[in-house]
Amino acid sequence: MTTPKQDNFYMPAEFELHDASIMIFPERPGSWNYDAKPALKSFLEIFKAITKSELLYLITSNSKYTEAEIFIKKNQLQNIKLLEIAQNDAWARDTAPTFVKNNKTGEVRGIDWQFNAWGGLFDGLYQNWQEDNALAKKFCSETGYACYNAQHFVLEGGSIHSNGQGSILVTEACLLSQGRNPSLNKQQITEILCEYLGAEKIIWLPRGIYHDETNEHVDNICAFLNPEEVVLAWTDNQNDPQYALSNACLEVLKQEKLKIHKLPIPENPICITEHDLQGYVFEEGEDVREVGERLAGSYVNFYFTNDSVLLPQFGGNNKKSDLFALELMQKLCPEREIIPIPARELLLGGGNIHCLTQQIPKGGKFS
Amino acid sequence: MTTPKQDNFYMPAEFELHDASIMIFPERPGSWNYDAKPALKSFLEIFKAITKSELLYLITSNSKYTEAEIFIKKNQLQNIKLLEIAQNDAWARDTAPTFVKNNKTGEVRGIDWQFNAWGGLFDGLYQNWQEDNALAKKFCSETGYACYNAQHFVLEGGSIHSNGQGSILVTEACLLSQGRNPSLNKQQITEILCEYLGAEKIIWLPRGIYHDETNEHVDNICAFLNPEEVVLAWTDNQNDPQYALSNACLEVLKQEKLKIHKLPIPENPICITEHDLQGYVFEEGEDVREVGERLAGSYVNFYFTNDSVLLPQFGGNNKKSDLFALELMQKLCPEREIIPIPARELLLGGGNIHCLTQQIPKGGKFS
Repeated sequence: MTTPKQDNFYMPAEFELHDASIMIFPERPGSWNYDAKPALKSFLEIFKAITKSELLYLITSNSKYTEAEIFIKKNQLQNIKLLEIAQNDAWARDTAPTFVKNNKTGEVRGIDWQFNAWGGLFDGLYQNWQEDNALAKKFCSETGYACYNAQHFVLEGGSIHSNGQGSILVTEACLLSQGRNPSLNKQQITEILCEYLGAEKIIWLPRGIYHDETNEHVDNICAFLNPEEVVLAWTDNQNDPQYALSNACLEVLKQEKLKIHKLPIPENPICITEHDLQGYVFEEGEDVREVGERLAGSYVNFYFTNDSVLLPQFGGNNKKSDLFALELMQKLCPEREIIPIPARELLLGGGNIHCLTQQIPKGGKFS
Repeated sequence: MTTPKQDNFYMPAEFELHDASIMIFPERPGSWNYDAKPALKSFLEIFKAITKSELLYLITSNSKYTEAEIFIKKNQLQNIKLLEIAQNDAWARDTAPTFVKNNKTGEVRGIDWQFNAWGGLFDGLYQNWQEDNALAKKFCSETGYACYNAQHFVLEGGSIHSNGQGSILVTEACLLSQGRNPSLNKQQITEILCEYLGAEKIIWLPRGIYHDETNEHVDNICAFLNPEEVVLAWTDNQNDPQYALSNACLEVLKQEKLKIHKLPIPENPICITEHDLQGYVFEEGEDVREVGERLAGSYVNFYFTNDSVLLPQFGGNNKKSDLFALELMQKLCPEREIIPIPARELLLGGGNIHCLTQQIPKGGKFS
């Protein structure tokens, strides 16, 4: 039982070339209101954007397989490979494998972390997550990737960002939360992450986005644009609860050799309406939503494809900040197309574009 | 929409080299009594024998995935790739794709026939077969084989045998049955088979094995050993209902340029006992078994792996014919290991080794 670092594997950055991306067809009635129909409009835009430049593995349960097949056909989507694998929800970032790559041979392998629905019995978001937890290993097995067993460690892909050169961004709020690895201290978690992600340094941001039900995943507040530049979700409004959180992260980032770009959060909070709420069907033990609840909207939850950035856009009274984010990202990533994705319905599901996607770095399968 | 023949594809013989085999983990309570535990002992022997010389794709529903995974691990099986795909039963021969190969490029593609549980509403064996019918296309999609859509034609893989050189063995009892393609006559079916299997000639045997619930699939009565030799299930007992059936087939075979070897059926009929029956759980509309019912036991339902023949053995009061079959097959296939497989529990499920397996010929995936 070796670790990725022992075998010369490391986690490439998302902005490096991919062989493919992974997504999951939305199904969970407690996450995707009105039978996922509103969200599917946004999913469609993501499917189109990803498949322009790479293969997309689309995972679906048996019960949604035919619907997914028809959806692909009706929308004339190419470059999608449907895989029938059961799941409890659609957050591929958190339940699909994290992929690492051999720095000599180029081989790509998966890592199968333990998944416990963002906090298990302590503060997890639903009570049955066994299909989610089984998904990463199944995916590797079915697609032919070797897979490291890291079931001794609870982690979601959304709680880590790699710059591909030895640095990993995380948040203390998430990784030190009581619902994940309560028996491990910060130093021990640092060591495990370095060992499995082939990294040298863990950058511990204190917090994430206000009211983020993942215990503040890093992928909603801060992301690498290249090995030395990050964007940080930001607000100048001192009355916004996000102000202190973003500032605390800025203080940590300033101590690193990183160029920091502030990416303002939506100008107006995005909240659940009565109409939104009526479309959900919650199961017993599931975290329910409430009218007026502020969702963890952020433009940082974007996704790099091989030639573009898929950027959340919230519409409504956030058109100005939508446009600002679009223009800023275009300036910061001049060589990429910035593709705006209507994302309010994704946020209603509990996450955003980055949470719904997982990259497989370019490389080989040797297993 | 081209056909395999138009694209220079043909069906290689099973005795040619394989890239892999396909099987399905047993689950259906109306086929596999006592929670499939007795049958799994035979499955295990087949898994071991196949994986000695080739990759085995093992399909399992979500509900049996973990059990299959533990089964593989506990028995230290290598060279198996588990795929989670729903099914209604375990007969990979009939529900997995039939594979054809390009005679110039070597590309291998699947064919997705329509499957209707051996006779649909007319005399099919169960009423819900939609997962079975969806399986072939899913398998091709997930494993990366291009796939011909032949859903306009009802066929099971067990009802055809190819010699790899343009000849296909079938039975009239099956292919002209009312439950399959009642609007097509023998000439039309001949043309469709030649077109999809890249064949020149269909050899129409009249009948199959007595009381074979598949409407007498050819793979239980006659099989190619090489392009010019066949074995024919046989009995010299004129009081056995099989006598007339085998003789009728012999008359047809004699008109072909084929060397014919008679392979005697089990010396004593294999019948369902009270104990056997009590282990099944039948669903509504499912063909039920009865105590004393004669099963369609035959040694012809063997399977060629890359280096062996997996031969059914029935035990009990059939040890003499078991041994005779083993010795005859060893004589006829001197270059192969003949591996005896305890098969009574498979026969109780409604078929035998050949019905449970499907070969993928050696070649390439170009899709």
